[in-house]
Amino acid sequence: MTKCFYCRNQAVTFRPYSGEYLCKSCFLKSVERKVQRTINKYSLLEETDIVAVAVSGGKDSLTLLTILNKLERHFHETKLIAVTIDEGIKNYREESLKFAESVASKLKIPHKVYSFKKLFGYDFDEVISILREHGLDESSPCSYCGILRRAALNIAAKDVGATKLATAHNLDDEAQTVIMNFLRADYIRALRTGPRLEKIHAGFIPRVKPLIEIPEREIILYAYFSNLPLHTQTCPYAQDAFRNDVRAFLNKMELTRPEVKYNILRINDRLRSVYTCLERELDLNTCIVCGEPTAQELCKKCELLKILDEIRAGTRKT
Amino acid sequence: MTKCFYCRNQAVTFRPYSGEYLCKSCFLKSVERKVQRTINKYSLLEETDIVAVAVSGGKDSLTLLTILNKLERHFHETKLIAVTIDEGIKNYREESLKFAESVASKLKIPHKVYSFKKLFGYDFDEVISILREHGLDESSPCSYCGILRRAALNIAAKDVGATKLATAHNLDDEAQTVIMNFLRADYIRALRTGPRLEKIHAGFIPRVKPLIEIPEREIILYAYFSNLPLHTQTCPYAQDAFRNDVRAFLNKMELTRPEVKYNILRINDRLRSVYTCLERELDLNTCIVCGEPTAQELCKKCELLKILDEIRAGTRKT
Repeated sequence: MTKCFYCRNQAVTFRPYSGEYLCKSCFLKSVERKVQRTINKYSLLEETDIVAVAVSGGKDSLTLLTILNKLERHFHETKLIAVTIDEGIKNYREESLKFAESVASKLKIPHKVYSFKKLFGYDFDEVISILREHGLDESSPCSYCGILRRAALNIAAKDVGATKLATAHNLDDEAQTVIMNFLRADYIRALRTGPRLEKIHAGFIPRVKPLIEIPEREIILYAYFSNLPLHTQTCPYAQDAFRNDVRAFLNKMELTRPEVKYNILRINDRLRSVYTCLERELDLNTCIVCGEPTAQELCKKCELLKILDEIRAGTRKT
Repeated sequence: MTKCFYCRNQAVTFRPYSGEYLCKSCFLKSVERKVQRTINKYSLLEETDIVAVAVSGGKDSLTLLTILNKLERHFHETKLIAVTIDEGIKNYREESLKFAESVASKLKIPHKVYSFKKLFGYDFDEVISILREHGLDESSPCSYCGILRRAALNIAAKDVGATKLATAHNLDDEAQTVIMNFLRADYIRALRTGPRLEKIHAGFIPRVKPLIEIPEREIILYAYFSNLPLHTQTCPYAQDAFRNDVRAFLNKMELTRPEVKYNILRINDRLRSVYTCLERELDLNTCIVCGEPTAQELCKKCELLKILDEIRAGTRKT
């Protein structure tokens, strides 16, 4: 029997990047401590924050809500509100919506659902079918969904009066994004990728990623040991070949270099520390249509909605 | 018959990243123009430079020497001197040494050979066999060879009175190195990776990489069309698994995103432009043993030679 590094009980998992064997109880505590350390290290949350937690109902966001709820007990002034975006994707979102609802209710955390349909007038199923029908689906569905979801999350966070928006991006997500920014030469996105994104616009709710130092594998284990419900449906549109290639590469590299994903985070931190020279490059404008923050005149969401509206009204010129 | 984009002769190659079909003659000219543009864009060479060209005798360095020799005709004051480092690797270096000699002589460029044995007292074959025998080969042979070769090239460049040292790193090499720096969180090396490395120490000959924007595939083609001899022996020590993994990944990404290696160069350029904030981090010390530039007190080469010397003298404590 392999023993836990800390309490000598039976170990249930091994961390290749640190050499630790951990029992169930020490593993759960260790993940929670790590999240607290991430919050402290990057000053993600303050005691008086009202935190909108983006909860899709998947393993990452349910884990985030569970851990923040535990940590919050030490900070009575902090308030958590779960917000869920219902994109309107049939045979996919229904199950996780239920999970989000049930976990929030069990933790006695207020929960609000915002739908693409109500916010923007279209279900995501409609968005994609219109774009495809008119041969306008140039990017992957994930990127259109991302535009709308990010906009919806900011609207939701403002609606519940939040001072911070917490998302459940994990170590794997973040390391992939850093490498993808590089491969795309996406300089502005490189500047914006990190554990926190400041209030770069009066109408922008600052975003924080408390799970950024937790590997995906450990989140799955955390969710399993915590009896969180497991969302088994996969998104019918999920086909981000680019991210999949980067994920496969990093997972391969990790086999022989267990610290590789942490390395990517660290060097991105270090590089970002000099970006202060260029802070103005991060400043955002106000969308001339919806008033939300944007890097352009018209935000990406309104740009997309304009096309959809024109198609629906039959006024679009090709 | 597919026609050349420029002269309508028969095309012999296609560039996926630009969509150009090119005939042999337009291809050769295009590569040369691209090298000239790289030199101008990054101010790699000045008219009065004495350029030590690092020529191993492989396809990259023979191509570099051939192209610089062509371009130099327009700059009569520039002087080229080929320098070759003979690491002392049996059944590998002999052939390429002959090629370096014959191409330099054909181009009427002075050529000088420097050997590890004469400079440091050890052939590379000896270095590796000693390290292996004593279980000290912790890194890949390539990394020990790199330490000694970089030191040797600086000594050689100074010896021939050069004001610049040109190396034949190509687009593929450079893109791999940028990603490797990231995966290793090697911040200092990230700062140093780029088309030119300034005079960061009184005893350091600035380095330039004129082929940094030429894909490896085009260098092979250039060498072939220019009837340059092809070095067919592979180094018996070549086993840089890390670089091989990164190479395979980038080559895979390139199939669907032909511009990916250029993107990596571009974002690295952009990030480097803010590194001026941190210029002092690049300053080097003087090695207390050999007087060559180093980031430590004792340079990596002298550190390695100290171990080898102690083993040889039987004074090494384990």
